[in-house]
Amino acid sequence: MVGRKLVERLTRDGMLAGEGISHVVLADVVEPTAPTAPSFEVEHAVADLADPGVAHQLLSGLPDVVFDLAAVVSGEAEADFEKGYRANLDGTRLLLDSVRAAGTGYRPRLVFTSSIAVFGPPYPEAIGDDHGTTPLTSYGTQKAIAELLLSDYTRRGFVDGVAVRLPTICVRPGEPNLAASSFFSSIIREPLNGREAILPVPDDIRHWFASPRAAVEFLVRAAEVDGEALGNRRSITMPGVSATVAEQIEALRRAGGDDAVRLIRREPDERILRIVKTWPGRFAAERAQALGFRAEASFDEIVRVYVEDELGGRVGADP
Amino acid sequence: MVGRKLVERLTRDGMLAGEGISHVVLADVVEPTAPTAPSFEVEHAVADLADPGVAHQLLSGLPDVVFDLAAVVSGEAEADFEKGYRANLDGTRLLLDSVRAAGTGYRPRLVFTSSIAVFGPPYPEAIGDDHGTTPLTSYGTQKAIAELLLSDYTRRGFVDGVAVRLPTICVRPGEPNLAASSFFSSIIREPLNGREAILPVPDDIRHWFASPRAAVEFLVRAAEVDGEALGNRRSITMPGVSATVAEQIEALRRAGGDDAVRLIRREPDERILRIVKTWPGRFAAERAQALGFRAEASFDEIVRVYVEDELGGRVGADP
Repeated sequence: MVGRKLVERLTRDGMLAGEGISHVVLADVVEPTAPTAPSFEVEHAVADLADPGVAHQLLSGLPDVVFDLAAVVSGEAEADFEKGYRANLDGTRLLLDSVRAAGTGYRPRLVFTSSIAVFGPPYPEAIGDDHGTTPLTSYGTQKAIAELLLSDYTRRGFVDGVAVRLPTICVRPGEPNLAASSFFSSIIREPLNGREAILPVPDDIRHWFASPRAAVEFLVRAAEVDGEALGNRRSITMPGVSATVAEQIEALRRAGGDDAVRLIRREPDERILRIVKTWPGRFAAERAQALGFRAEASFDEIVRVYVEDELGGRVGADP
Repeated sequence: MVGRKLVERLTRDGMLAGEGISHVVLADVVEPTAPTAPSFEVEHAVADLADPGVAHQLLSGLPDVVFDLAAVVSGEAEADFEKGYRANLDGTRLLLDSVRAAGTGYRPRLVFTSSIAVFGPPYPEAIGDDHGTTPLTSYGTQKAIAELLLSDYTRRGFVDGVAVRLPTICVRPGEPNLAASSFFSSIIREPLNGREAILPVPDDIRHWFASPRAAVEFLVRAAEVDGEALGNRRSITMPGVSATVAEQIEALRRAGGDDAVRLIRREPDERILRIVKTWPGRFAAERAQALGFRAEASFDEIVRVYVEDELGGRVGADP
């Protein structure tokens, strides 16, 4: 979803990091969605980065910027241990080694999408930029390892890497899914579309959010940020909005009224609560702020972005 | 060196984690030194853990405790990128995967020797147990990655891992070597043996030390510590002594007199200073203390351990 929106954004801008875009290679394990009327050449590839030789071939045009968004998501990496390590660790390492193998003259900006899943409890009141990565999932472990590789390959001069630790993206468009985090989006999206949503956790659960639009903005900013300013610390926790479920619901009320809020059905789910309780609630993302990464200022703004980008600015209509 | 001393210690005790030792497999890339008169069976193997199948074979007896000490050291991992990743990352991962492949019933305690090289500047006054790992060397990167793997494999129930982050070991026996840290030991060891030592950095450099005897004690304690008490945070910064070079020299004076101190020749080396300046000076190793890991209480004690263990208790004699 973020990848698709990134391509839309690049198509609209025609520029990245101050330069015109001439050529884009889109690679995914399924057929990637083609952008509409791009001003640049587009190549498609259906390929698995974890297969030997694939990364080498994808880099044959020596792109100036590489976005590494591919990942086996959290739930799947937990369910299928080997698949997760293969995609999220071996795939990224093969990509880094392919950049390295291209030779000393080639040092592209590589933007890696990491996640706040690299963190684990106990947390301080606000998690600082020096806080250690003690993930509680295999997915978070794989992201934390990829961050370390990216920093070391950068320090050695093989690549110019930036890892952005994305907040939970909210409001996700589309259908509710089986991810434990799905309800954070559902309880806003479904009522705004006149449909019922299920809330499996108490109202005082606090979490860290940014909109899909902000996520794309993070990636674009990561492509252009000054590498020297990052020094050897190439992993950056992105800014976001810290909100409780109660605060989410009040933002929904302001956007969609009491009728929307009445569509939230409380159905406590111990399994989901057990997972969500281990997630971070608030970051002091000072480095990111200083480096010019910007997120929404409130959960109201996150709701507004959803209404603008997904509902054409109108609340309450069926899409 | 620590491996050899660990074998000596196990031979002396005949016990580990409250149980009699019946069988020990020693594996190294060179012929391991055999213990003298052990009360247990000893097997030797000259093998490279990073070769496929080796870990599987070494584990064929399903040992209750595995010590993973093998490593390409810092300077070598920096000089030979691929060799370092192969030994320190792939070797450890193959070991973990071999334990996993052995099946659900087998869940040995795996003691992994990590290092304070997982940390990088800037540092707080005392580095806490929650501080992030931002290594400045490939060696430190490989250790930090192995720590993450160990925690995840433990969380998934494949192994019962404990990673001990060793301080700089001081006073190392033997000859000065090319490691940037060599002088920390040389300026004590050489004068206590009537020989000149070179000091390449200013007296106000502060670093974090433990004796070889304490390092062995850490490994033994790590083999017996309650895994439940560690929760999901399986990497533990070891306690140590924070000392400046000036404090080291005063400890030398108390042990060996002014004559010993006069054998230190100051020969500033910018290259060594540049490296050593990035090293941590002090930790608040509270978790380790709470878990029963014990180091020396002062640098005087570290000097005394050297005199007792390497000089037979006598200062000033040629060995």
